[in-house]
Amino acid sequence: MSTSPVLLLVDESGSRRVDPHEPHLSVTDWGVTRGDGIFESISVIAGRMPTLDARFDRLEASARALDLPLPNRSIWTDALRKAIDAHEPVDRLAVTVVMTRGVEGADDSPTAWLLARPARDFTGIRRSGVSVVTLDRGYASDAAEGSPWLLLGAKHLSYATNAAALREASRRDADDVIFTSTDGLALEGPTSSLVVRRGDLIESPAVEAGILAGTTQATAFGFFESRGYRTRFSAIAAAELVECDAIWLVSSVRQAVAVHTLDGHPMPVDDAMTADLNRWLGDEARLE
Amino acid sequence: MSTSPVLLLVDESGSRRVDPHEPHLSVTDWGVTRGDGIFESISVIAGRMPTLDARFDRLEASARALDLPLPNRSIWTDALRKAIDAHEPVDRLAVTVVMTRGVEGADDSPTAWLLARPARDFTGIRRSGVSVVTLDRGYASDAAEGSPWLLLGAKHLSYATNAAALREASRRDADDVIFTSTDGLALEGPTSSLVVRRGDLIESPAVEAGILAGTTQATAFGFFESRGYRTRFSAIAAAELVECDAIWLVSSVRQAVAVHTLDGHPMPVDDAMTADLNRWLGDEARLE
Repeated sequence: MSTSPVLLLVDESGSRRVDPHEPHLSVTDWGVTRGDGIFESISVIAGRMPTLDARFDRLEASARALDLPLPNRSIWTDALRKAIDAHEPVDRLAVTVVMTRGVEGADDSPTAWLLARPARDFTGIRRSGVSVVTLDRGYASDAAEGSPWLLLGAKHLSYATNAAALREASRRDADDVIFTSTDGLALEGPTSSLVVRRGDLIESPAVEAGILAGTTQATAFGFFESRGYRTRFSAIAAAELVECDAIWLVSSVRQAVAVHTLDGHPMPVDDAMTADLNRWLGDEARLE
Repeated sequence: MSTSPVLLLVDESGSRRVDPHEPHLSVTDWGVTRGDGIFESISVIAGRMPTLDARFDRLEASARALDLPLPNRSIWTDALRKAIDAHEPVDRLAVTVVMTRGVEGADDSPTAWLLARPARDFTGIRRSGVSVVTLDRGYASDAAEGSPWLLLGAKHLSYATNAAALREASRRDADDVIFTSTDGLALEGPTSSLVVRRGDLIESPAVEAGILAGTTQATAFGFFESRGYRTRFSAIAAAELVECDAIWLVSSVRQAVAVHTLDGHPMPVDDAMTADLNRWLGDEARLE
């Protein structure tokens, strides 16, 4: 059992545990010199191995978008099992898996690792919600269609603009961001998917608009369907967000947070429903 | 004297030389997990210390765009001097300086390094030129203006889309890319600036269109002015590129390469002028 993060380096033959406090990356890794790689974040609750199909599907889609080798599911599953076993028992582990294009001038092997750490405690923000600003992401909602090199919808390491958007939010005294397209659609957060409620209809933006297919978003739809809501993917006008009955940003580790303020306007929040949704998301992760 | 790359880790107190074959970066460095950092490439010809003002100005602009600490010019200059002295004499060193946001959860110190290596030999491509495809960068030419979080014009580490565009070019049997804006302007290459000739007029796109201010581009303008050409920054319609009398992509290490084919159309090339331009760019680097 380890009280520190568990880090495994992964290659085509398997995974091996290394000291997380030591450096393991070359300064000529394409992951750092070009942000050229892909990642996934996985929640492990109470030490139970989650179902990884949806994660692997998305990691594969990202690998395809970046012309990277497809991940070997059995090696990665084995690595996650090893990390869970090696880490001291905690309520929730935040696991990151990363694959970069490897080291400049070396062979074509990716650099890959799995890092398991106790998740930050998001219980406070799940209860309090967040204030959000909408920021233009600069792309039209049809940009992804003809321009695969824009890598829209891939979960890759070139996230400097996401980080910059979150700093802009902070400058505007907000906690988070909802990106919008140049043609006025609401898209997603820098690290979360968007779910809105209008009456008995629950909606999320369609991935065709160039956003990430949200794995937690899919689980959230399951929750609402179990409660009798209709769910659908649709084009959500950014200008209509303020008229929604509820807005959530959902992601695997932070789970669901209600948007209580949008561009300075107070938004309706339903604390009981947010709590139920988070219980469902936690249970799902536990059951997976 | 070293026959291998010279790597210096840089912090606020100075720089120290380390083994370039050892890993030096943590897997939780924001440089790799988010592509969150900035860089510059510097050519060092015949071991002569270049003038660094324009480089530092751009590095500072990038640091400001990403809310990173401004680089300490005297420490970086000293590091470059040390690297030049430590490297075995070569015709041309390609030097990369990088500053990331540092390590997740640590203090706010950036991770920074300088890496000096012999430059690749680009003499062949400077003579032969390149075939280029135009690819839509997905942004309108006024996107930079109101949306600083898009980091357009900053030289940052989130270059996965640039790498993807170059792979797309390769799939189309081309060597390089000229990005275009959604409103039809020619912008820049993934790692180079665009210079075109129309009669006695030499033009480059204006940085207001959300492109990087090219340091080599500025030197190229100087060359053409010395030859009696007028130079100007302007909006260059992508559709008009094919009617230009010459197109070059210019960058610090590869220098100037003529575009001999644009989206499959043969373009006029002037081998003598390209050679003269490259001599000037090389001399400038030597004289700086």
